[in-house]
Amino acid sequence: MRLALAQINSVVGDVDGNADRIVEWLGRARDANADLVLFPELCVTGYPAEDLLLRPGFVRAARRAVDEIAKATHGVTALVGAPHLDTDLFNACFVLAHGEVRCVYRKRFLPNYGVFDEDRYFAPGDDLVLLRFGDVIVGPTICEDVWQPGPPATDLALAGAQLIANISASPFHIGKDREREEMLRVRARDNSCFFALCNAVGGQDELIFDGNSVVLDDEGEILARAAGFEEELLVVDVDPVAAIGRRLRDVRRRSLARAWEHVEATSVELAPPRKQAEAAHPAPAEQLGELEQMRLALELGLRDYVVKNGFDDVVVAISGGIDSALTAALCVEALGPGRVHGVSMPSRYSSEGTRGDARRLAESLGIDFREVAIEPVVEAFTAALAPSFEGRETDLTEENLQARVRGTLLMALSNKFGWLVIATGNKSELSVGYSTLYGDLAGGFALIKDVYKTDVFRLSRWLNERAGRELIPVSIIERAPSAELRAEQLDEDSLPPYPKLDAVLEAFVELDRSREELSQDGFDPEVVERALAMVDRAEYKRRQAPPGVKLRPKAFGRDRRTPITNRWPG
Amino acid sequence: MRLALAQINSVVGDVDGNADRIVEWLGRARDANADLVLFPELCVTGYPAEDLLLRPGFVRAARRAVDEIAKATHGVTALVGAPHLDTDLFNACFVLAHGEVRCVYRKRFLPNYGVFDEDRYFAPGDDLVLLRFGDVIVGPTICEDVWQPGPPATDLALAGAQLIANISASPFHIGKDREREEMLRVRARDNSCFFALCNAVGGQDELIFDGNSVVLDDEGEILARAAGFEEELLVVDVDPVAAIGRRLRDVRRRSLARAWEHVEATSVELAPPRKQAEAAHPAPAEQLGELEQMRLALELGLRDYVVKNGFDDVVVAISGGIDSALTAALCVEALGPGRVHGVSMPSRYSSEGTRGDARRLAESLGIDFREVAIEPVVEAFTAALAPSFEGRETDLTEENLQARVRGTLLMALSNKFGWLVIATGNKSELSVGYSTLYGDLAGGFALIKDVYKTDVFRLSRWLNERAGRELIPVSIIERAPSAELRAEQLDEDSLPPYPKLDAVLEAFVELDRSREELSQDGFDPEVVERALAMVDRAEYKRRQAPPGVKLRPKAFGRDRRTPITNRWPG
Repeated sequence: MRLALAQINSVVGDVDGNADRIVEWLGRARDANADLVLFPELCVTGYPAEDLLLRPGFVRAARRAVDEIAKATHGVTALVGAPHLDTDLFNACFVLAHGEVRCVYRKRFLPNYGVFDEDRYFAPGDDLVLLRFGDVIVGPTICEDVWQPGPPATDLALAGAQLIANISASPFHIGKDREREEMLRVRARDNSCFFALCNAVGGQDELIFDGNSVVLDDEGEILARAAGFEEELLVVDVDPVAAIGRRLRDVRRRSLARAWEHVEATSVELAPPRKQAEAAHPAPAEQLGELEQMRLALELGLRDYVVKNGFDDVVVAISGGIDSALTAALCVEALGPGRVHGVSMPSRYSSEGTRGDARRLAESLGIDFREVAIEPVVEAFTAALAPSFEGRETDLTEENLQARVRGTLLMALSNKFGWLVIATGNKSELSVGYSTLYGDLAGGFALIKDVYKTDVFRLSRWLNERAGRELIPVSIIERAPSAELRAEQLDEDSLPPYPKLDAVLEAFVELDRSREELSQDGFDPEVVERALAMVDRAEYKRRQAPPGVKLRPKAFGRDRRTPITNRWPG
Repeated sequence: MRLALAQINSVVGDVDGNADRIVEWLGRARDANADLVLFPELCVTGYPAEDLLLRPGFVRAARRAVDEIAKATHGVTALVGAPHLDTDLFNACFVLAHGEVRCVYRKRFLPNYGVFDEDRYFAPGDDLVLLRFGDVIVGPTICEDVWQPGPPATDLALAGAQLIANISASPFHIGKDREREEMLRVRARDNSCFFALCNAVGGQDELIFDGNSVVLDDEGEILARAAGFEEELLVVDVDPVAAIGRRLRDVRRRSLARAWEHVEATSVELAPPRKQAEAAHPAPAEQLGELEQMRLALELGLRDYVVKNGFDDVVVAISGGIDSALTAALCVEALGPGRVHGVSMPSRYSSEGTRGDARRLAESLGIDFREVAIEPVVEAFTAALAPSFEGRETDLTEENLQARVRGTLLMALSNKFGWLVIATGNKSELSVGYSTLYGDLAGGFALIKDVYKTDVFRLSRWLNERAGRELIPVSIIERAPSAELRAEQLDEDSLPPYPKLDAVLEAFVELDRSREELSQDGFDPEVVERALAMVDRAEYKRRQAPPGVKLRPKAFGRDRRTPITNRWPG
C-alpha cells in the first residue's frame, strides 16, 4: 500500500486558501499513485484556531470546504482534519473518497494542558472507525489519541487494524521529534501495528509545528521520516498486512485479544491497494541536533509570523550586544538581508566598542543600517520632566526612559515604512523582568523570548560555525553583557551570573520546583531567593510583551498562566 | 438553623493572609451564634489562582492552611473552599467542625468556557455529601454544580437534603446578580429545597466577584441577600425542614422520587441547630441598577488591583476628553483624591477648550495636577527621524508619535514616584484598534477597557447625577470626541458614529454574529464591513494592552481568545 503524508503549512482562518492547498497536494499524492493520503489535524481551519471555533459561520465554512475537497478525491482516499458540527462540535478526521465524505472519526482525547485548550471547544468522540482497503485495515486517530497508551489505538489494533493513521498538529519544543518517535515505537510494538503520523508544519503566533512526520512498521522501525520545519509530501510503500504474522507469533498479545471486550467500530470499504510499478522507499530525513532545531524553529516562526500577517520587512534595534546580534542574524537567515533593517540608537553610555560592533554586524549581515542618536530626545524628555523631578535622585527612571525613546523611534520607523519591529529580549531577562516595558519589550514579535541567555551564546556560536565566518563578530559574543543604560553598567551588577540564573529559572519556571525543593536540589540559596523574588513580580511585563517562538517545554504565555495579582512567594 | 455567609475578599496566592481572614470571620460567625458558616469557593488560595495550582508546594500550603482553619471551628461548622490533592487535584469544599476536617466534597462540574479553565487544573468529583444537623440535612455544592439543572442538586434533594449550600466564586458581568438569583429561584422550586449561595467578592486582575450572596427558601423567595461589591457577613435564620411538607404535597416531585435510582452519599453527623435568643432576619440588600453596578465594579476592580499589588497612588493622563475624565473620576471615588495624580500633556493640536477642561476637571476632583507640554519632545523626535523620513508624507506615524511621547512621560512619572499608570481607552476603541500601542494603551491597568463609548457617556452623566454637581464638567461630556492628534480631527472621521458602531461591536464581539447574520439583523452593511475589518486586525494591540475590569458577558482577554495570525474575515 502506498501512503502519502502531506505535511503542509496551513494558515489559521484562511479556510479557502487552506482548502486550495489541500486540493493541490491531493493532486500531488494522486500523481504519486498513493492509495491513502494523510493531512494534518484541523488543517482546514489551521491550528489552533482558538475562539474562531466558537463562531458558527467559521465552522460552517470549514465544513463547506471539506465537501469541496472531497470532490477532488477520485482515485485516492484522504484523511483531512476539520471541525465537525453535529450534536456538538468535534475535532474530526474526515475520510474522503470517491468524491464524497465517506465517514468521520472524532478525536477521543482532547488535550487541555500546556498550550492546549481543546475542552473549551470540542466534545470528545467515542466511536472507532476501520477503513478497509482490501486486506489492509487502517484505523484513523487524531494527535493526542496516540499519546494515550490505551484506546483508541489498542482497541483499533485488537479490532484488526494493522495500521494506525494519526493526523496531528503537535507543537514543537526542543527534542519533541525524538519524544514523539520514541512513543510511537513503543505503541507500534505494544500493538503489533504500523503507525503513520502526519504532523502539521509552520508557525502560528507562539507555536511552531515541526513536521517530522513519520511512518513505522509493527516492530517500531522507522520506514520513512519527513524533514523538520518545512513542507513535504512523504510517499512510502508499506505492507501492514505483515503485522498479522507477528500477531500470531505474539502469545502475550493473543491472550490479551482473547480477554478483550469487543468494541463497536464503523467499517468503511475502500479500494484495495494498487500494484506499483516502482517501489517508494525514501531514505528517512536526518534527525537534527538541539541547536539546529532551535535555529530552524526560530526562523520558521519568524517567517510565518511575518508572511502570514502580511508584512514584508522587519526592523531590529542593533545595540552591539549579543541579543540583538542573534536576533538580526536569524531575521536575515529567515527573510534574506534585503528585508531586514538595522537601527543603532546610541546614547552617551554606548561605548565605542558596541557602536562599532553594531555597524560591523550590519555589514556582516549585509542589511540596511542607520544610526539615530537618542541623546537630543532624552534631553528633551529630561527638560519636560525637570519641574516634576526637581530634587529627586537619578534612578531606574532615567534608564527606562532611554529604552522607551528607542522603542518609540522603532515604532515610528515601523509606522512610516510598514516594517514589523522585532524585539530582542531573551528568556532570562523576561523571566526576571530585566527589561523595559514599551522600551526593549516593544515590538510585534519577540523572536528569542524563549531562549535563555546561555543559549543565546551557544546559538550565536553555532550560526558562526555554520557560516564558516564571523557572521556575528566575535567581539560581540565575548563582551560581558551590559544594558548600557548608565555608566559602567554590567548585567551581573543586577543579576546573578547567567549560567547560575538560567539553571534556577529552568527548574522554577519550567519544572515548578518550589523554593524548598530548589534548595534541596543544591542551587545557591541566594540565587534562588533573588530569582524567585523577581520572576512572579515581572508577570505584568510579560503580559504586555509581544508573542515569540515557543522553543521549550514550558514557555511564558499559553503554557504558563500566572496571575498578575499574586502574593504567593514561589 | 442559623446560617452565616462570609462574603470575603481573598487575595490570590496569599494563603496565610487568607487563612487568617477566614479564621477571623469564623470567629464573627461564632459570635453571631451561627450553626453553619459558608466561605467562598477556593477562598484559601484566591480565585482564579491559575497555574499556581500546578505547583505542588502551593497546593500543599493551602492544605496546611485548611488544617489550621479547622482548629478554629469549635462551636460552628464551616464550609471552606480549597484545592484538595488526593488521587488527582480537586476543587473542594472542606467541611470543618469540632476542630477538624470532617469531610470533603469535590466539585463535579468544572467550567471550562468563557473566563474559566478548570479542566486545566482539576479532576471532577463524583460523590455526594449529606451534612446532618439533627433533622436538618444540608448538601454542599460548589459554584457551577448548581448552574446545571440536574445532579448534584437534584440528587441531593432526592437523597433528603432540604438545603443546598453552594460556595461560589462567580465572576461578575452586568446583571449577573439577577441571572444568578433567577436560576436559584427555579432550582429551589424544582427541588423543593432551600438554597444558600455564598459568593466571593473582590477584584482579581480582570475579574470582579460581585458578592450578592443570597439565601432562598424552597419556594424561591429571597430570605436574605448580601450587598454587592463589598465584604459582608450575612446572618440569617432558616427552617429548611419546612421543605418536607411541601415535598409531601408535591405530587410531581413524589413520582420523580419514586422513579429515582438511589445514589450513594457520604453522611456526616453534626450538632443540631441551637435555639436562638433573638431571630435573625435582615432585610435583603437592594438590587442595583446597571450603571451603579458598572460604577461599583470599576471602583472595586481598580481598588483591588492597586491595593493587592502594593501600589499607593495612580496617575492618569487627563486630555480634556471624556474617557480620561471618567477614568480619573472613578479613580478618585475608588481611592480618594489624595492618591490620584492628573497630568495634562497638550500638543499643538490641543484646543483651548480641552486644555481648560483638563484643568477644570482636576479642580473639580480635587487632585494633584500638572501640565507637561509635549511639543519640544515631539520636535526632538521629528529631528532625530528627519533623515529617515525625508521625502515622506506626514501620516499616522506623527499621530502615534505624540501618543507615545505621552505614554513615555507617564511611565517616567510612574517610575519616579511609584504611581500606577491607569490607561484610559474604552472598549469601542480597543475593539477597532483606534488607539496607540505604547501610547494611550500604555499603563498598568486599563480601567474602562470593557466600557463602550456610549456607556462612557452614560456613566459620566450618572456620576454627575449622583454627585449632584458637575463632577465631570458638562463641556467635556458634550464635546464631539476627538483624539486631537492632528488639526480638526474628529473620531467620526475615522470611525462610524459610536451608537451605530457599539451596536455592531456588541453583536460581533460578544455574540459572535457573522457578517451574514449581522446584515440579516438589519445593521448598516457599511458599518458592519468597516467594524469587522478592524476588529480582528487589532488583536495584536489587545494582546499587549494592560488588564482592565471585565464588565460584560464577553470581555477581551480571558473571555475572547482570538489568534493574532488570522485570515478569517469575520
